[in-house]
Amino acid sequence: MFSDRFDQLVQALRILPSVGPKSAQRMALHLIMKNREGAIGLAHALTEATNYIHECSICHSLTEDEVCNICLSTERDEQLLCVVESPADVMAIEQSGSFRGKYHVLGGHLSPLDGIGPDEIGIPHLVHRLSDGKVQEVILATNATVEGQATAHYLVEATKHLPVQMTRIAQGVPQGGELEYVDSHTLSQAVHNRMRMK
Amino acid sequence: MFSDRFDQLVQALRILPSVGPKSAQRMALHLIMKNREGAIGLAHALTEATNYIHECSICHSLTEDEVCNICLSTERDEQLLCVVESPADVMAIEQSGSFRGKYHVLGGHLSPLDGIGPDEIGIPHLVHRLSDGKVQEVILATNATVEGQATAHYLVEATKHLPVQMTRIAQGVPQGGELEYVDSHTLSQAVHNRMRMK
Repeated sequence: MFSDRFDQLVQALRILPSVGPKSAQRMALHLIMKNREGAIGLAHALTEATNYIHECSICHSLTEDEVCNICLSTERDEQLLCVVESPADVMAIEQSGSFRGKYHVLGGHLSPLDGIGPDEIGIPHLVHRLSDGKVQEVILATNATVEGQATAHYLVEATKHLPVQMTRIAQGVPQGGELEYVDSHTLSQAVHNRMRMK
Repeated sequence: MFSDRFDQLVQALRILPSVGPKSAQRMALHLIMKNREGAIGLAHALTEATNYIHECSICHSLTEDEVCNICLSTERDEQLLCVVESPADVMAIEQSGSFRGKYHVLGGHLSPLDGIGPDEIGIPHLVHRLSDGKVQEVILATNATVEGQATAHYLVEATKHLPVQMTRIAQGVPQGGELEYVDSHTLSQAVHNRMRMK
């Protein structure tokens, strides 16, 4: 609209998730008109982050070092390993404050139609990690989607020969969920997996 | 969360309009995990845009050159001048395709409580621009807010001594608007400003 570089900025902003053409335009105008300093800071932060952030060599979460803080920590329970699909899941579980063990990030889920098999999400590497006997329990925290469930089941099979306990995060009605609005699949699973209270 | 640079990127993304902490986190993860190339491109576009985009010396819209394309254009009607509050308004009117004259961007509206008077939004400069007699009609397209209306009225007063026609963009029920949902102030104004059809 105003100039080539303005249009290029609008286009570049559209790579952000859930930013459409209108929002991108509004963002570009906001940056140019009201916060150039912020725009320069954002450019710097993007460059730094892309240059320095990479996978942790142990758990495959994100870090700036060879090994991430969680893997290095001596205060976390090494006998407990939580398997998740992505670093976003590590973040979600950490923010819930409900877990003090270590993580393993698969980097995806099994999806044979897309050519993603056990090798592509490093399952042999995970099985190898479990084979030294340090980990006593693996919490399977893949998503509660069809693919996430399949990946969890595959992992149970793949670790059958190891003396490690495999658990799955609970599935049921979410906190604050009103039964009226919960989908019937979730509800039937919640009834099926009911817990004894007395 | 993962590292200092990750947190800095999340913070930097929060300067974008309507991006809260959760969205910023999601954006940062998306960029780092799925689109590093896009992130590098965005950093470049931000740097270029902040370095090269500035105000047009005539109309105060945005340009990379001394004078913007619209001011330079010989195909646009020089006798028609549209006064708007910001470059975003120029963009909106251009996208509506309803105007083929030239623009003047005030860069704000009168707001005495915030210390923004006629000088701060360059009204003397605009009056000077109109005084050479080239412009026959000024379309006041400031926002239909209290400040925008006040600014429009002030401009009418400030140009009283000039032989230029001043018009205000129409105010009324928006296209597709159902009367049931239109606020009563808009509706009373729409009745007051009714147009003869026969």
